[in-house]
Amino acid sequence: MKNFYFSFDEDDIKYKKVAIHLKAMINNHELIHGEKLPTIREYSKLLGVNTSTIINAYELLQNEGYAYKKMGSGTYVKKEEQKNYILKEYSNTYKKLTRGNLENFIDFTGETTSSEFFPVDTFKKVLNEVLDRDKEDAFIYQDALGYKGLRKSINKHFWNNKMEIDDILVVSGAQQGIDIITKAIINVNDNVVIEKPSYSGAMNVFKWRKANIIEIDMKKDGIQVEELEKILQKNRIKCFYTMPYFQNPTGVTYSFEKKKRILELAEIYDFYIIEDDYLSDISYDNRVEFKSLKSMDTKDRVIYIKSFSKIFLPGIRIGYVIPPQKYSDKIQTFKINTDITTSSLMQRALDIYIRKGLWKQHIKNLNLEYKKRYEFLIKECNNLLKDKVQIYDTYGGLSLFLKIQRKDVNCIKLFEYCKDNNVLITPGMLYYLNSDDGMQYFKIGFSKVDTKAIHQGLMVINNLLKESE
Amino acid sequence: MKNFYFSFDEDDIKYKKVAIHLKAMINNHELIHGEKLPTIREYSKLLGVNTSTIINAYELLQNEGYAYKKMGSGTYVKKEEQKNYILKEYSNTYKKLTRGNLENFIDFTGETTSSEFFPVDTFKKVLNEVLDRDKEDAFIYQDALGYKGLRKSINKHFWNNKMEIDDILVVSGAQQGIDIITKAIINVNDNVVIEKPSYSGAMNVFKWRKANIIEIDMKKDGIQVEELEKILQKNRIKCFYTMPYFQNPTGVTYSFEKKKRILELAEIYDFYIIEDDYLSDISYDNRVEFKSLKSMDTKDRVIYIKSFSKIFLPGIRIGYVIPPQKYSDKIQTFKINTDITTSSLMQRALDIYIRKGLWKQHIKNLNLEYKKRYEFLIKECNNLLKDKVQIYDTYGGLSLFLKIQRKDVNCIKLFEYCKDNNVLITPGMLYYLNSDDGMQYFKIGFSKVDTKAIHQGLMVINNLLKESE
Repeated sequence: MKNFYFSFDEDDIKYKKVAIHLKAMINNHELIHGEKLPTIREYSKLLGVNTSTIINAYELLQNEGYAYKKMGSGTYVKKEEQKNYILKEYSNTYKKLTRGNLENFIDFTGETTSSEFFPVDTFKKVLNEVLDRDKEDAFIYQDALGYKGLRKSINKHFWNNKMEIDDILVVSGAQQGIDIITKAIINVNDNVVIEKPSYSGAMNVFKWRKANIIEIDMKKDGIQVEELEKILQKNRIKCFYTMPYFQNPTGVTYSFEKKKRILELAEIYDFYIIEDDYLSDISYDNRVEFKSLKSMDTKDRVIYIKSFSKIFLPGIRIGYVIPPQKYSDKIQTFKINTDITTSSLMQRALDIYIRKGLWKQHIKNLNLEYKKRYEFLIKECNNLLKDKVQIYDTYGGLSLFLKIQRKDVNCIKLFEYCKDNNVLITPGMLYYLNSDDGMQYFKIGFSKVDTKAIHQGLMVINNLLKESE
Repeated sequence: MKNFYFSFDEDDIKYKKVAIHLKAMINNHELIHGEKLPTIREYSKLLGVNTSTIINAYELLQNEGYAYKKMGSGTYVKKEEQKNYILKEYSNTYKKLTRGNLENFIDFTGETTSSEFFPVDTFKKVLNEVLDRDKEDAFIYQDALGYKGLRKSINKHFWNNKMEIDDILVVSGAQQGIDIITKAIINVNDNVVIEKPSYSGAMNVFKWRKANIIEIDMKKDGIQVEELEKILQKNRIKCFYTMPYFQNPTGVTYSFEKKKRILELAEIYDFYIIEDDYLSDISYDNRVEFKSLKSMDTKDRVIYIKSFSKIFLPGIRIGYVIPPQKYSDKIQTFKINTDITTSSLMQRALDIYIRKGLWKQHIKNLNLEYKKRYEFLIKECNNLLKDKVQIYDTYGGLSLFLKIQRKDVNCIKLFEYCKDNNVLITPGMLYYLNSDDGMQYFKIGFSKVDTKAIHQGLMVINNLLKESE
């Protein structure tokens, strides 16, 4: 139990003394940003003072920027520097990890498939095939749209030849897709709707573009559509950024009805949908039939983005975009202005890889392997963390987004504790516009951990969460 | 001679009739955007009317958007749609060319080395060496700064180990360098100084960022520094974008004194210098000792950008940036938000290529080959085009920027004529903020044409320019 208790001297102004005591705890890091303070009733009882003393003390803390109130929930510690410190610490630890400086860490931050599944030998053969076949041509600047052969393969393999190959724009990964689409269609102060929570890499791009970002809560079958309608009735919306399958971070998959309704709304209220298909390939439920918004889109409202890096070879840096006719030229121009063109050799190799059916086989293998890990993770969470976290079954993707049930542990505390025990998780605050909203959440990515590591990692998390309050 | 003459009827309002006649010529494309109209004296003489009639007619044309006046120079045809049409036509022809649909064209638009000089076999060996050595690691997400081995090689080979390797940020080509630097340091309405003329790929990025762009005339040893000082005295400047060696498009190389003075000014007036080292390697004058602004920079004022694509393998998409300490973190963040990281395999291969001395050898070969072409081009220009164009010896780089001396031929006319004769040049208007300023210029890139094609191409240009006026 934290040391909230102290005794008063005779001439103390009581509410001030309470505030001073709490401020000392905050400055000593005994209390951290986002942590809940005792309720007024509890604390007044503990100190033997009137409730008004605590009320006044909390108000003082609020005025001095040490606390904030959540309606109907209580008062929480606010310490912006501390929050920024955590963000920096997360990013530094993550950097160390990717540089291979933290070899004994259990890495729950993985967003891409594990290198053990990389089809290196096959891809090497394919690369050499390209070099022998195309020689110099493998290195020339490609058509700004991307290598024609690859666009043909994408159209055939992923779209049953229903697209025009000139509608497909090859990009250097999905992040670049988001970047150039933002440049092409979003202006300063434009309204952009995103899911709450959402992918920070996209939020950063919209923020940087100085767009006005509006979050809509995610439910178990997609965003609250009524909420979207309300917003549309009052505001001019430029676009809606969504990940309809295994949404990052929640893992939620949209229902068919919601997708249909959102497409209708896009037409009625004249906005565009940026569909980030970042991981639909990794699905553990055979009954789920994949149906992208783009494939349902009869009114040319969807800007589709596909990443190949996350599920294939992260280092390959290839993805593609299918924009609506209206924005086709503009998006292509911004692609040229951003990096001219995407690696030519890699495009040619990926083309052969897809055409030979190797891609399909690779995805099949991944699904088998990751299904095992997913099922193990769900089982272990239910064994170890039941009642300590809220678990949501995703039936796909490479991560779980969990809610910490205990009010006195937030994601910062969990992050710090895990790090001290050689485990790296992603704090939920990263996925919210206002990081306070994500204080009780954290993400467990299982793409880079085997079952043994999953078990060990969850044990560490359990150690913190099981401690008596 | 154009058909400027016509006769009047008795009841004509003379100045209106003149305007109607000229408008018809413009609409029939007999007169094109940027073309000079007859002087008032000439035209009044030709038609046998008072000078005031012509003055009134030209004013009417101006009011109706058919003409514009340049102080001290005369009145010119203005036809924005026509200008946009030409830009589109250029871009379409260029697209066709890169798609290989214009095989018989003589391509004077080349910005990168010719595929005949690509070290494909050597690079294939190097690629396989990487794959055998690094296996899966060749495909993992790299450290956001780039593959450490490559950064080490860059530091050793190009900077005598004088940099810190963590100061070097690998990017997906120089265009991406410009893009992320702009994102990181330039805000809406910031003042950015560029050379006049300058590289359109950079101008587009600054324009898109809604920066306030200020052009300063290029002289034979760099920009007019007095002009820069005047501007600095009155305005807060964020940065100056420059290509100090074989500037694109003029081919100008800065004098040591100008570079030194600009660095001093950067410190005095607190601005940053974006140094785009896009082609310094291709130099035909052994007496020129390469000295980048970055290497002269003692006050940490220079953001250095280097492209490997232009002189090596365009499809490889690798370059690097060395930012000042102040912007180091920010630029790195924008790199991550733009495309996360640059192709890992290619970075590893380039590393080996540099470390084995193959890069040095490659550049040596290129210089030998291109020196021959450069000298041939200069000789042929002097033979065929003397007095018809102004020629400027660059002693390096892969292009010449020429000024058309005849007033009745501008770059649009030349571009159209060349295209009809299977030759593609780059119109000078592309390199100016106000395209009217570049109407008399065009660029001849010789990277993708052999001496035979150079001769044939120049003959076509000569055919137009030699025609009697």
